[in-house]
Amino acid sequence: PVRKNARNEFGDDKRIVVNVGGVRHETHVSTLRNIPNTRLARLAEHHLCSREPLDEYFFDRHPAVFNSVIDFYRTGELHVPLEVCGAVVKRELDYWHVDEFHIKSCCWRHYRSYIENKRILDSFNRSLLKENFVIDLESLTGWKKIQMRLWLVLEHPRTSKAAMVYGVISLCFVVTSILGFCLETLPFFLRPSMISNRTNGTCEREKPREIGSNMTPHEALNILDIICTAFFTIELIVRFIFAPDKLRFVICAMNIIDLLALVPLYMQLIFNYGSILFCYQDEQLMVEIMFILRIVRMFRIFHLVKHYQALKILVYALKASVQELLMLAIFLIIGTLIFATMIYYAERRGEDGADDQFRTIPIGFWWAIMTMTTVGYGDVYPTSPVGYIVGAACGVSGVLMIALTIPVISNNFTLFYTHVRSRKSDKPRDFDNSDE
Amino acid sequence: PVRKNARNEFGDDKRIVVNVGGVRHETHVSTLRNIPNTRLARLAEHHLCSREPLDEYFFDRHPAVFNSVIDFYRTGELHVPLEVCGAVVKRELDYWHVDEFHIKSCCWRHYRSYIENKRILDSFNRSLLKENFVIDLESLTGWKKIQMRLWLVLEHPRTSKAAMVYGVISLCFVVTSILGFCLETLPFFLRPSMISNRTNGTCEREKPREIGSNMTPHEALNILDIICTAFFTIELIVRFIFAPDKLRFVICAMNIIDLLALVPLYMQLIFNYGSILFCYQDEQLMVEIMFILRIVRMFRIFHLVKHYQALKILVYALKASVQELLMLAIFLIIGTLIFATMIYYAERRGEDGADDQFRTIPIGFWWAIMTMTTVGYGDVYPTSPVGYIVGAACGVSGVLMIALTIPVISNNFTLFYTHVRSRKSDKPRDFDNSDE
Amino acid sequence: PVRKNARNEFGDDKRIVVNVGGVRHETHVSTLRNIPNTRLARLAEHHLCSREPLDEYFFDRHPAVFNSVIDFYRTGELHVPLEVCGAVVKRELDYWHVDEFHIKSCCWRHYRSYIENKRILDSFNRSLLKENFVIDLESLTGWKKIQMRLWLVLEHPRTSKAAMVYGVISLCFVVTSILGFCLETLPFFLRPSMISNRTNGTCEREKPREIGSNMTPHEALNILDIICTAFFTIELIVRFIFAPDKLRFVICAMNIIDLLALVPLYMQLIFNYGSILFCYQDEQLMVEIMFILRIVRMFRIFHLVKHYQALKILVYALKASVQELLMLAIFLIIGTLIFATMIYYAERRGEDGADDQFRTIPIGFWWAIMTMTTVGYGDVYPTSPVGYIVGAACGVSGVLMIALTIPVISNNFTLFYTHVRSRKSDKPRDFDNSDE
Amino acid sequence: PVRKNARNEFGDDKRIVVNVGGVRHETHVSTLRNIPNTRLARLAEHHLCSREPLDEYFFDRHPAVFNSVIDFYRTGELHVPLEVCGAVVKRELDYWHVDEFHIKSCCWRHYRSYIENKRILDSFNRSLLKENFVIDLESLTGWKKIQMRLWLVLEHPRTSKAAMVYGVISLCFVVTSILGFCLETLPFFLRPSMISNRTNGTCEREKPREIGSNMTPHEALNILDIICTAFFTIELIVRFIFAPDKLRFVICAMNIIDLLALVPLYMQLIFNYGSILFCYQDEQLMVEIMFILRIVRMFRIFHLVKHYQALKILVYALKASVQELLMLAIFLIIGTLIFATMIYYAERRGEDGADDQFRTIPIGFWWAIMTMTTVGYGDVYPTSPVGYIVGAACGVSGVLMIALTIPVISNNFTLFYTHVRSRKSDKPRDFDNSDE
Ligand SMILES: [K+]
Ligand SMILES: [K+]
Repeated sequence: PVRKNARNEFGDDKRIVVNVGGVRHETHVSTLRNIPNTRLARLAEHHLCSREPLDEYFFDRHPAVFNSVIDFYRTGELHVPLEVCGAVVKRELDYWHVDEFHIKSCCWRHYRSYIENKRILDSFNRSLLKENFVIDLESLTGWKKIQMRLWLVLEHPRTSKAAMVYGVISLCFVVTSILGFCLETLPFFLRPSMISNRTNGTCEREKPREIGSNMTPHEALNILDIICTAFFTIELIVRFIFAPDKLRFVICAMNIIDLLALVPLYMQLIFNYGSILFCYQDEQLMVEIMFILRIVRMFRIFHLVKHYQALKILVYALKASVQELLMLAIFLIIGTLIFATMIYYAERRGEDGADDQFRTIPIGFWWAIMTMTTVGYGDVYPTSPVGYIVGAACGVSGVLMIALTIPVISNNFTLFYTHVRSRKSDKPRDFDNSDE
Repeated sequence: PVRKNARNEFGDDKRIVVNVGGVRHETHVSTLRNIPNTRLARLAEHHLCSREPLDEYFFDRHPAVFNSVIDFYRTGELHVPLEVCGAVVKRELDYWHVDEFHIKSCCWRHYRSYIENKRILDSFNRSLLKENFVIDLESLTGWKKIQMRLWLVLEHPRTSKAAMVYGVISLCFVVTSILGFCLETLPFFLRPSMISNRTNGTCEREKPREIGSNMTPHEALNILDIICTAFFTIELIVRFIFAPDKLRFVICAMNIIDLLALVPLYMQLIFNYGSILFCYQDEQLMVEIMFILRIVRMFRIFHLVKHYQALKILVYALKASVQELLMLAIFLIIGTLIFATMIYYAERRGEDGADDQFRTIPIGFWWAIMTMTTVGYGDVYPTSPVGYIVGAACGVSGVLMIALTIPVISNNFTLFYTHVRSRKSDKPRDFDNSDE
Repeated sequence: PVRKNARNEFGDDKRIVVNVGGVRHETHVSTLRNIPNTRLARLAEHHLCSREPLDEYFFDRHPAVFNSVIDFYRTGELHVPLEVCGAVVKRELDYWHVDEFHIKSCCWRHYRSYIENKRILDSFNRSLLKENFVIDLESLTGWKKIQMRLWLVLEHPRTSKAAMVYGVISLCFVVTSILGFCLETLPFFLRPSMISNRTNGTCEREKPREIGSNMTPHEALNILDIICTAFFTIELIVRFIFAPDKLRFVICAMNIIDLLALVPLYMQLIFNYGSILFCYQDEQLMVEIMFILRIVRMFRIFHLVKHYQALKILVYALKASVQELLMLAIFLIIGTLIFATMIYYAERRGEDGADDQFRTIPIGFWWAIMTMTTVGYGDVYPTSPVGYIVGAACGVSGVLMIALTIPVISNNFTLFYTHVRSRKSDKPRDFDNSDE
Repeated sequence: PVRKNARNEFGDDKRIVVNVGGVRHETHVSTLRNIPNTRLARLAEHHLCSREPLDEYFFDRHPAVFNSVIDFYRTGELHVPLEVCGAVVKRELDYWHVDEFHIKSCCWRHYRSYIENKRILDSFNRSLLKENFVIDLESLTGWKKIQMRLWLVLEHPRTSKAAMVYGVISLCFVVTSILGFCLETLPFFLRPSMISNRTNGTCEREKPREIGSNMTPHEALNILDIICTAFFTIELIVRFIFAPDKLRFVICAMNIIDLLALVPLYMQLIFNYGSILFCYQDEQLMVEIMFILRIVRMFRIFHLVKHYQALKILVYALKASVQELLMLAIFLIIGTLIFATMIYYAERRGEDGADDQFRTIPIGFWWAIMTMTTVGYGDVYPTSPVGYIVGAACGVSGVLMIALTIPVISNNFTLFYTHVRSRKSDKPRDFDNSDE
């Protein structure tokens, strides 16, 4: 084969010069005919057929990618150049009529990573842009203009100084309300005369203690609660009045939370003056609904998303990683099922009748999930030799499961976060950018 | 040395021009003779011997890798270009007769990483392809055709709409069966009259309670169980009938699980009508076998692998990382052995006779593995000063051990996952690809 | 379109050769006019207008980046070359009057990462440099010179051998003091006659036991404490005397800690001889202040920062990552709030009156934070089915939250650490570098 | 400035062509004079002074790095090309007399990472090679040859088939011995007649129970122990006889472990027949020494290092990361000190006298280290509000501390592991490599 190689090396097959963006690539004509139905194959045929072939053929394209393309013709293997972004490679491959699926698996990841990042970041940018919608205030008149101006103040804390001030005040009320709500449960803030002014009813048979203990915190906290509720009521009404799109306002999750969070206090007021109405068997249901509605109040903390960009990034990252989160969930569920069943049977037989720890499989679920996340409260734990083995397997597979899926899940958040940070770090230009 | 350098720089050694794919590389002839028995060394000798040496020697090869090759001749150190995939480098080095083992250790990792990824991804793709085998339905006739068509419906949920519908129904039965199985253990679903209709036997001396408590859940769950068992029985029979390769069907792990999972109910039926047969000393064994068989039912959840690709990726990743998992296991075992022994002696002497926590070394194993995975139930924990030191060392080395091995283990899963995701994100073309 | 392409390929639009640093790039003049108001667009117009256009235009610039620039003219998409540092790209884009915000999102991260790293490392280097300030000892005379020389000995352990020796001695005293402080609390070191020589007072009604048990450790530890306190007192005075900038010395956190750490012993001396003065109702307050001041002593351990560079890196990394740490804190606070409220209500209803575990929401905070960090002491844990679900959600979101934010937070520390290590590994040259 | 730029662009400063390895770089002569005392500056001066300057100056060097070098002359900023290995850059910079410390901080990390990896991998390879020392068996004669041949069999399991078989047998004995040792502690294997045949002594006053319970396991385990001890005794003697370097054999840690592990059984034999000798006050000491010696036996597991390469990698990685491990240790110690003191005071005051949880600061150490590693047994935990805050801070800083240091620590292990794996995956060539 040495002879043949030498023949190839030192000439005698027809050579062709392709000038791609100034870089001259030289090859044999036969090489270009290796991959039929492509731009270069047609060029090679044109070169052979034509009477006066040109000295060099000029293409106004990216020169670096052409290295890979011509290499594909030479060897039949398509590897991409690692110094060029995948999106450029895609564009150039399209130009040369080479299918991207000829790219070998070793280079595929590099090739796609840039395209994937572009896709995901572009959709991220678009959703950010959709929120920061620019409103042409000048084109509006009269009521519409006032409405829009106030709406911006109420909803978009970064649009003006007034909006910022209002946003901070609103946030203070949210924090105060939540703090009060937490302090209410401390024994220190409970009044000694717990159910003094409400025992004038007639139907408190067994439940009043609970309702009472919930509803009679310290006087100061009660007043705070009333002030906050008043503020939130007014705010909700004002925001509804100035909302430019009423329907969108009504179906917005945050507004529904705000509305539901107001219910308990008004319920309590009604309750205090008309307790006889509820004293039949639906009282227990009432109490439960009240409890759930009181939790809703805590979700007001999500008003912070408006003010703090990292939270916005988290929300988008979770949305973009929904498939990965689902994967983690399914892995955890399968692991939980398997280990819960195994620990149930392992511990049952070991205890031989005295089944105090893993009485039911659902308790096994709880144990398995807490072991796989490596929390391990120790409220339930295996005690038999087989149970020890199952427990050890559960702990190790939990560590593995989390370790395997975490890099895949954290990818999007890191991507978004570094993207936003790098965009922000150059503030003056950022403003220019919003113009284009 | 300045003089000598200048001599080298400004000429007087014979120069040679090597045109590699259009890029002209120039060097001294003496340089090319540095590495004997290679293509370029032979070229240099040919150049010196020949009467009329060519102005330039043309090679139709990748120009970027040649930079590294010529640099190897100049300096005796072989570093690879980082902008080219390792597989391309390998091919080019083979062409130039340069051994890859001259590559310096700094570049070796970059060089191999692409080749390794290619190897592992190609084998991954091959195993995926093996599953999605294309069956030439047209070539089959009569029974074979019906058999194959139904087999695809039964086993490959993505091949047709009917298969998808059937797959979802089958999965629903699996989920229902597992849910029923879990709920059975809840006290809420146990009938108050536990062993009413079965006490007509004569040999229930001490064990009936357990068997009874296992086998008498709520009537609704019993009926559900019977329905599910009937479905799975029919399914297994139908699948056996339409299986194109009976032997492969019989030795398939999933089918064995399905069969074993059916046993308990049928056993129970026999048991109910013929309990006198088993009432001798092997009853205890019976109960144990029944327990184990009931756990088997839970493994039906692995039918999900057919439907959910991420699970398939997990399975392949674990298979491909078997060496790394073994490494983690051995590290954990060694750590467990060392720390279990140390805590056993540390705690023993500390307690001075009253040995309530670490009575045996195997309990030390349990403690060590739970500490190294950072679960830490707190059912056993050291109480002596030496025990505290051993415990702290165990916790820290557990964290280190997991931290060291995790990046190595998660590598394959991340590789497969990003590969599959990037392949899938371009659906229409994916179909084209399957043609080639 | 083939015809049109062919026309473009084989000529007839005017071509222009731009020689950038020796590499000839060729393109159509029309291409250069695509992006108006840039250097190349003006060049194209100059080329068209001029009578005798040059054969090639020479720019003494980096050739690799020009590939991307010319590609931007051809296609309207700006991707950066991945083999060139982002800072070089920025400089070249500025030269060609191309705005960096045309860079596509796929390449943006690569482009910015080098610039970001440069920015953060330069500020890190500057703060390191600020500490290692070079003092021109020769220019000082008399007292100033002695003062500065001793100051260097006292404060900068790496400036001379004497400073190193002094630093080690000082550190030994710190370690001894802390060790003594820890051993004091061990029962082994408490004297049996606890409050023997102090009961000559008249006002020990109920509190003396605590004060006594604090203040009467073993005699040897007492002497050690006095020796250390003497040393630290002298050291503080000497350092104050030789401090070149008294104000800066006074407001330095470390010196305030040193001063406060001295207070307890002197207080005790006064207390022992004048205990009658304090025996009224402010005794309790005294004890509390004494307790806090005794903790302060432990912070002397931060003297280690002067000696150990990795600690310095940690401090700078935490400073540089303050935004990321804030993000983690806010995520944890929100998670804590939500889960604490949910567990409070979930567990309350489940227990139906007997509220022993989650009596208050703040206990829920404690539980939630310990579950999200996966510590999981198990002092409080959910016991109801709803509580189990909340607990599982809390554990999983804790794992996710930490996994998501950790790569972003650890980034700076890894950057600084590898930077410092790589700088240090080449000691002889490092010294050269400090000259420039 | 447009005019001036135009002047620069369209000529009139003298241009010079430098041909580096075939790639023509063009620049102004004035550019080359920017950095004095370098090879190019001297070239520029030579060019200006000489009567007949050459058209182009040829350097037989790597062309890619020259891009960066010439860019340094143009702009004064030295950035390295990212497609070339750092080691190549270093070599080229040395050739052009450009100091590597001009490299900007953005590129520094990339530049050094390859050099660092080379340094660390070369030292790793060297230590691997030192172990696999090749012995020239042919040159030895007589006893020396036999000695060496048997030594290889005894110590290097991969040198021959016999060595492999012997290695596996030896490992089996190690595993058996360890298993027996663990099973001894199980109650199941303890004989009911515990101290039957030993009560003929006269001095068992209070301690005999412990010694007895240690020394009287089941008869089968005793026999197993004697067989293993016999094997290990013979092995140790044989290995000592055939050791080519007696001194090195004696000081080897593994042999000392082997020797010490043999002591307990022989001690016991002496003890059984001469128990009267030890029955005075040093009996307690005897028991303690025996306990420690029995633990030593467990360290025989490290014989596995000879057989399993991943363990060797772990050992080397830990050795190479000793600085990083020290850093983690210091961080943990500082954190432990601070949090232990804080929890001690926080909990003390909260409990107000009844100090049952954090009685001493060392117990605080234990709590702090277990919280920072997120193990969290829950044997001690804070109960006061201030204690909750300290606990939460401790947990979060533990997570942060581990997260920050882990990437730095795991780096070397991952490097070594991937290096060894990639070397091994190409077995046939690996053998070739060992020749050179
Ligand atoms: K834990
Ligand atoms: K725990």
